[in-house]
Amino acid sequence: MTRTAAMDLKSLIKDVPDWPQKGVVFKDITPLLSDAKAFEETIDRLAEPWKGKGVDIVAGIESRGFLLAAGVALKLGAGLVPVRKSGKLPRAVVGESYSLEYGTAAIEAHQDAFPKGSKVLLIDDVLATGGTAKAAVSILERIGGQVVGTMFLIELGFLKGREKLRDCDCRALIAY
Amino acid sequence: MTRTAAMDLKSLIKDVPDWPQKGVVFKDITPLLSDAKAFEETIDRLAEPWKGKGVDIVAGIESRGFLLAAGVALKLGAGLVPVRKSGKLPRAVVGESYSLEYGTAAIEAHQDAFPKGSKVLLIDDVLATGGTAKAAVSILERIGGQVVGTMFLIELGFLKGREKLRDCDCRALIAY
Repeated sequence: MTRTAAMDLKSLIKDVPDWPQKGVVFKDITPLLSDAKAFEETIDRLAEPWKGKGVDIVAGIESRGFLLAAGVALKLGAGLVPVRKSGKLPRAVVGESYSLEYGTAAIEAHQDAFPKGSKVLLIDDVLATGGTAKAAVSILERIGGQVVGTMFLIELGFLKGREKLRDCDCRALIAY
Repeated sequence: MTRTAAMDLKSLIKDVPDWPQKGVVFKDITPLLSDAKAFEETIDRLAEPWKGKGVDIVAGIESRGFLLAAGVALKLGAGLVPVRKSGKLPRAVVGESYSLEYGTAAIEAHQDAFPKGSKVLLIDDVLATGGTAKAAVSILERIGGQVVGTMFLIELGFLKGREKLRDCDCRALIAY
């Protein structure tokens, strides 16, 4: 595929000050998702580094990660596995608790989500403190996955989340 | 595209009895999603009826709807709009409350989610009583969308949700 100059995806991400709490500037990706060309280019660029790496499974973190992981799974010809907030999955799970930029949470995946040894790519919208992603990587490994990488649409570099993901090939499309 | 005999997608959906509460048989689609070939065929078949109908926006209902809507948006060359649970979207919203098979809930979308007059296709995983889908259609119309159809992976026919969606072209891949 040849591609003309890359779109300015960053211009389609809206800063929302003081949300969900005072002092936090939230990155709203909905204008990017709703622009068909930008959405397609986003998915292409999220998938690109992982082509030919034998990814079997793309795991997405609930909920915004789902919006990106699904397309990347299709682009890579991989299966899709949801890593969900606690209590949402109906069968036996492996879970982890963690603290995040604002508050605490727990996530989990089905313990039979994929065959042991599967190569797994983890996708989320934002890498902030890295707590959520680190918990997700741990869950995917405990299930028997080989996590080949973590890929984010946005990295908030000042929160140093990347330091929590040192054992992974950690990438992001857009940095702040 | 020519296609060999359609896969038996239904065989990849697991019945989970008494979840999330006694008496409910939950349809677990995660085994279907994690099977790369089945996932791709699912998305192809969800998109197929809407090709050439000028769909501008595919709206997905949080959370499982996101896993399907994202791929359908890519297949149709449309933008993706999340219809989220109450309190999750950071800017001005249009929302509706509704009752569902087990409990009550509220959903909303950004009031500027798409330009007025956009042709919108609504996607969710399951059509049960139809309360969620009806609320979502109402929100999308109040925002200014022209809802060209509602498409579900699964329809629980015995719950008669389709009766709540009479004004739409309502379709489902798999019926129970």
